[in-house]
Amino acid sequence: MAHLTPLLAFRWSPRSFDPTAELAPAEASALLEAARWAPSAGNAQPWRFALGRRDDETWKRILVNLPGRDQRWAARASALVLGAHLTAGPGSTGHAPYDLGQAVAHLTVQATALGLHVRQLHDLHAAGLTADLDLPVGVRPHVVVAVGQVGDPLSLPADLLASETGLRRRRPLAELLLA
Amino acid sequence: MAHLTPLLAFRWSPRSFDPTAELAPAEASALLEAARWAPSAGNAQPWRFALGRRDDETWKRILVNLPGRDQRWAARASALVLGAHLTAGPGSTGHAPYDLGQAVAHLTVQATALGLHVRQLHDLHAAGLTADLDLPVGVRPHVVVAVGQVGDPLSLPADLLASETGLRRRRPLAELLLA
Repeated sequence: MAHLTPLLAFRWSPRSFDPTAELAPAEASALLEAARWAPSAGNAQPWRFALGRRDDETWKRILVNLPGRDQRWAARASALVLGAHLTAGPGSTGHAPYDLGQAVAHLTVQATALGLHVRQLHDLHAAGLTADLDLPVGVRPHVVVAVGQVGDPLSLPADLLASETGLRRRRPLAELLLA
Repeated sequence: MAHLTPLLAFRWSPRSFDPTAELAPAEASALLEAARWAPSAGNAQPWRFALGRRDDETWKRILVNLPGRDQRWAARASALVLGAHLTAGPGSTGHAPYDLGQAVAHLTVQATALGLHVRQLHDLHAAGLTADLDLPVGVRPHVVVAVGQVGDPLSLPADLLASETGLRRRRPLAELLLA
């Protein structure tokens, strides 16, 4: 990992969020602004977001549509952000999931710059989110982004502790190269 | 754009690359390392890359598979990086395009940290890239990332100059919010 800029080198995806930490409104705005200014194919900006802060209505509606095993740790996060993408209409370029990925990555870099951490969940109840958040037609829930401060990992349930304290692992670079 | 970290706030996507600037090997390594350490669903890392530096074989094979109108400016870039994602096999989670988007965003942040700029192209000749780069089955070309230093915008063809010097525009944040 030599030579990576600190905002990337020190990023990791915790579960041990501090259940007492709150996300300030200015922090929430900065996270969404970062996503907003991400690049996209044809500048289509095919991303949509719902941001819930702990215990508000949006937060509750997002949390209940996560698997029970993930609710155990996601409920500690200061905010839960639903990331959705367009599936139809003028903003649909065929690159919407890719562009949502870019926008969430920008949100994550901004979170790191604020001293916050992010963990993404892809195993979500899309139909439930669509109903509970009254999402418009053509908007598909794709990811939930838990945002918060890192707390005490020893407060995690035992079965989550091992993965929390393990090393980050990636394939060797050579396996990623095509030519 | 208040309060964004500089690596995001000052990012933009030029066409006026300096055709004399070269990408150092250490810079190329850092770009790929940044992509490599991006997060992905289930840590599947479903991204694959080919990096060509100006005038090498990989660079030529990527360039020739871009539309002629884009070759005019892409040929100035110091490097062209093909970003591909898995479509089948153990790395295929249904989130591969999303995760590739994250990886390219991380590459872009690293490029910015190095004083480089990035512009992405989605209008590429996928079948040509697959043939010319001898890509394995199950790997789909998705994006070409032009990387380089910004040169003189007045050296661009006149029809490209207007977009180069225009303001970056995004939808108001309110249009992106679902709840």
